[in-house]
Amino acid sequence: MFDQGTQGAQLVSLSSLAVVLLHAPVLDRRGDTVSSAVTNLDLHDIARSAKTFGVGRFYIVTPLKEQQRLVSRLLAHWLDGHGAEYNPKRKQALALISVCATVDEALDNWRRETGDEPLPVLTGAAKQATLSFNALRNALFQQPALLILGTGWGIAPEIFGRGWPVLSSIQGAGEYNHLPVRAAAAIMFDRLLQNRE
Amino acid sequence: MFDQGTQGAQLVSLSSLAVVLLHAPVLDRRGDTVSSAVTNLDLHDIARSAKTFGVGRFYIVTPLKEQQRLVSRLLAHWLDGHGAEYNPKRKQALALISVCATVDEALDNWRRETGDEPLPVLTGAAKQATLSFNALRNALFQQPALLILGTGWGIAPEIFGRGWPVLSSIQGAGEYNHLPVRAAAAIMFDRLLQNRE
Repeated sequence: MFDQGTQGAQLVSLSSLAVVLLHAPVLDRRGDTVSSAVTNLDLHDIARSAKTFGVGRFYIVTPLKEQQRLVSRLLAHWLDGHGAEYNPKRKQALALISVCATVDEALDNWRRETGDEPLPVLTGAAKQATLSFNALRNALFQQPALLILGTGWGIAPEIFGRGWPVLSSIQGAGEYNHLPVRAAAAIMFDRLLQNRE
Repeated sequence: MFDQGTQGAQLVSLSSLAVVLLHAPVLDRRGDTVSSAVTNLDLHDIARSAKTFGVGRFYIVTPLKEQQRLVSRLLAHWLDGHGAEYNPKRKQALALISVCATVDEALDNWRRETGDEPLPVLTGAAKQATLSFNALRNALFQQPALLILGTGWGIAPEIFGRGWPVLSSIQGAGEYNHLPVRAAAAIMFDRLLQNRE
């Protein structure tokens, strides 16, 4: 756990952060590695939270063509279709979304968009953390980062095998720790921006 | 904005806090006062976040009998029915839920359950705050509180007319501030517990 001791340093926005919602490879309830289905509400909720905290981009990662098409149809409705007129605020949020087949494609995309080497950061409630929220906040002053959230029962071991840093897990009040990924994303953005009265 | 200056004081859990998800009276997109429909996912997500942070109770407030029955059916499925076996973790979270017709009924219930006078606290993105997160955290050491979240386009003015304190709004990175109520609840619990590495 490295922490440069600049607690309280505040970012103006999270524009150098991109978030990945990973649908494969992830674990299912039995611990098998699978591709999970894209959930409409994950896209809306995480996009709204990301937009509120100034996150730079929101990558939906799924290798399944049909799932990619589903996301494209949803985006077409809200960005150009009837939804764009009905709810322009939703359009602003969903415009953050890009669809990628793999986490490496998202990393390449974010590297190109920022013109700099992004720091990939893994997350998971039960994983051994190597990076504190303060350390990630400090890193964001220097370089872009890609925050990777798993769906289903979490990011598969093969991704943890890449050796990327793992963000501190969000500890609650006790043993129970089953935050929805939508809630975990919001809390992470809030902790990283640390915009408190 | 009163703040007793004990920043960093940490609660062990949020057991003296109850949360209300208010479905009436709330505003709709045109600014009219209405009863909103209960959303299945609000119940699941806020219950899971509440359970994770040790919140004492989660009141669903709706005066509509049909909506109350809908919540009861959902709870029966997850607490006693097939859902309880399928997902015992979900059962633990949803067991926090009680249904009430009005915010006063929730307040009475929480007063009886805690044996003490609860502090009602209002929330709303655009409202003038009178209570900081630190002040509410400090209050929770002394007395129970009832944190009231609005659905739709927010809590109706008649509830603000009660003169109850208003919690600081969650500020993001700029003008855009459209957090889902599910995300706002999670962030509020995290800020109040303040359980950081």
